[in-house]
Amino acid sequence: MSMDVTFLGTGSAYPSPCRGASAVVFRTEGDCWLFDCGEGTQTQFMKSPLKAGRITKIFITHLHGDHMFGLPGFLCTVSLQCGSNPTKQCVDIYGPVGLRDFVQRSLDISHSQLVFQYRVHELLPSHDQCPEGEFKDFLSLRRENSVDPEDQGRTIYENLEEGSYELVADEQFTVKAFKLFHRVPSFGFVIEERGRPGKLNMEKIKELGIQPGPICGKLKLGATVILDNGQKVSPCDVLGDPIPGRKVCILGDCSGIVAVGGAKLCYDADILIHEATLDDSQMDKAIERGHSTPKMAAEFSNLCRAKKLILTHFSQRYKPQELVTDGDEDITVLKTQAQSCVLFGQDVTLAEDFMTINIPIKKNN
Amino acid sequence: MSMDVTFLGTGSAYPSPCRGASAVVFRTEGDCWLFDCGEGTQTQFMKSPLKAGRITKIFITHLHGDHMFGLPGFLCTVSLQCGSNPTKQCVDIYGPVGLRDFVQRSLDISHSQLVFQYRVHELLPSHDQCPEGEFKDFLSLRRENSVDPEDQGRTIYENLEEGSYELVADEQFTVKAFKLFHRVPSFGFVIEERGRPGKLNMEKIKELGIQPGPICGKLKLGATVILDNGQKVSPCDVLGDPIPGRKVCILGDCSGIVAVGGAKLCYDADILIHEATLDDSQMDKAIERGHSTPKMAAEFSNLCRAKKLILTHFSQRYKPQELVTDGDEDITVLKTQAQSCVLFGQDVTLAEDFMTINIPIKKNN
Ligand SMILES: [Zn+2]
Ligand SMILES: [Zn+2]
Ligand SMILES: [Zn+2]
Ligand SMILES: [Zn+2]
Repeated sequence: MSMDVTFLGTGSAYPSPCRGASAVVFRTEGDCWLFDCGEGTQTQFMKSPLKAGRITKIFITHLHGDHMFGLPGFLCTVSLQCGSNPTKQCVDIYGPVGLRDFVQRSLDISHSQLVFQYRVHELLPSHDQCPEGEFKDFLSLRRENSVDPEDQGRTIYENLEEGSYELVADEQFTVKAFKLFHRVPSFGFVIEERGRPGKLNMEKIKELGIQPGPICGKLKLGATVILDNGQKVSPCDVLGDPIPGRKVCILGDCSGIVAVGGAKLCYDADILIHEATLDDSQMDKAIERGHSTPKMAAEFSNLCRAKKLILTHFSQRYKPQELVTDGDEDITVLKTQAQSCVLFGQDVTLAEDFMTINIPIKKNN
Repeated sequence: MSMDVTFLGTGSAYPSPCRGASAVVFRTEGDCWLFDCGEGTQTQFMKSPLKAGRITKIFITHLHGDHMFGLPGFLCTVSLQCGSNPTKQCVDIYGPVGLRDFVQRSLDISHSQLVFQYRVHELLPSHDQCPEGEFKDFLSLRRENSVDPEDQGRTIYENLEEGSYELVADEQFTVKAFKLFHRVPSFGFVIEERGRPGKLNMEKIKELGIQPGPICGKLKLGATVILDNGQKVSPCDVLGDPIPGRKVCILGDCSGIVAVGGAKLCYDADILIHEATLDDSQMDKAIERGHSTPKMAAEFSNLCRAKKLILTHFSQRYKPQELVTDGDEDITVLKTQAQSCVLFGQDVTLAEDFMTINIPIKKNN
């Protein structure tokens, strides 16, 4: 099954003509999910080959404007576009507490009525995710209205043991979130594809005298069977190695994780998308603002042994080499800095708007 | 004094790569005002020669997303850009009741703290501005907080005699609003430059034996003076004809005005900016959606004897002739339709993103 991520916005703080505000699309044959939705994301969609109308889930890392001011307009435009297709499924939106109020009020004040349902599932953040005194409690914004709470979306609490929030668990994927440290509570998301059983070894099946049919099906599903001749066959006798699932980690703005659980969740990621707002020479300033540098991103990728590190969320002052003028910085310095810190030969890529990264199926171990 | 308007967004419903969402900048040597602020307006500013940081007043015609979803991000980015210039003056924002709540909440939820002050002055709309049953009363959103109401902005009521709302009255300009009919209450804005006294006729001044100095100044300000020789001189004896002020009218989405006062306010406009969302062949659909066609816009320009009619807010299906493909319409049809309806030789222009229209000083009558 094909799987890729496309960057629609890779700039920090605000959208510019060179780099849109944060937005990443995760796509498989069946699913199309949006991670962050800065102002202008709907227009970036139009400039890309992707279809905004295919998005069924939206994940917002944190409540800074450059990650969510595009959300009300995105929903309105998708609604307009599928006006003739009122069968569009419910859109599930995930983000910190406060997001539901923002979406509902923005749609309300703008007299917008979507033709599809949406639910905003809110993650409950904690005080250790931002500097003391910066934490804002938006729980009081919850509107006690007549809508069934199930229809509005649920509240998602941290699983304290694992240090994770469980957002999605379907047949193909699980999506979990974990806490990041930033100027305001921020989250990282881990998409994990479920592993699949190995292929039937048809030679062995033949040797055992098994006919293609229900018995093969049972074995493939992991059940032990007893043949007519009384012989017991376990799945491991006839199945190749299981095909491991892929793992994609998309982190919000941060100067680090809050607890080691985050690194565990990201362990062995095929793709780690990490911010690098400023270069290493500005690390103090980056940390003060709750941001990372290439070195910090590389160190996290070392910790979780990610195979590929993609940097994004660049300060708008970093320009492609050929466009560098007075006051700008050459963006390639960020790549060099990250490369000099990776310990396991991780591939380092600088994200660009409209760049698509393919995530190939894994080979069995 | 130079005066011009620049279109930063001329598309209806949503921003597209061809046409941004609604935004027009009115500029003189001293002032820079923004009319509507659809999503992506801040990026359109960056693509233009204009400076977002110069804006001191923002006028929002109505509370549809394509006219205001860019406002929170615009304010945040201006704040970031003038971070080192905390002397930026207060930004006055004008729009229908409900706008203040939207701005305050959006900034609050996104943890945004602007380095400058802003006030949202709210126009009280009335039920005759939209279809029955569509009117939403946002008065209840007013937050009773501890802030001095003067600091938050005032409520502006209609002057029932003139059918106008007085927004600005300074030494150079008055700005008034009037009611439009749309799916939701919408407003038109009339910027009127104050007339200036004519030039001193230096020949006559010499004839009367007046020396350049305070006496000339008094005459110029309109005062009658008595010379040393006892002669009485009135301003009209020595001043040329007064120089009339210019008038620029910027209308929000509408299928028409609510009362004839609107046309009176716009009378003799130098520039009339009017929407034309659909072409005349779709007039029924346009009216149903609270919009206008070129014919409707031209008829309003006839009613108020505007000198120049600029059409904008085009459905995204209308494309420049050279880009027309399947399902698109040729935009030039809108111009032809308007031209065939103007009765007084008004110039008709189709707005394009980044188009600037100069408004020359008027000659004395
Ligand atoms: Zn950010
Ligand atoms: Zn942030
Ligand atoms: Zn509109
Ligand atoms: Zn409208």
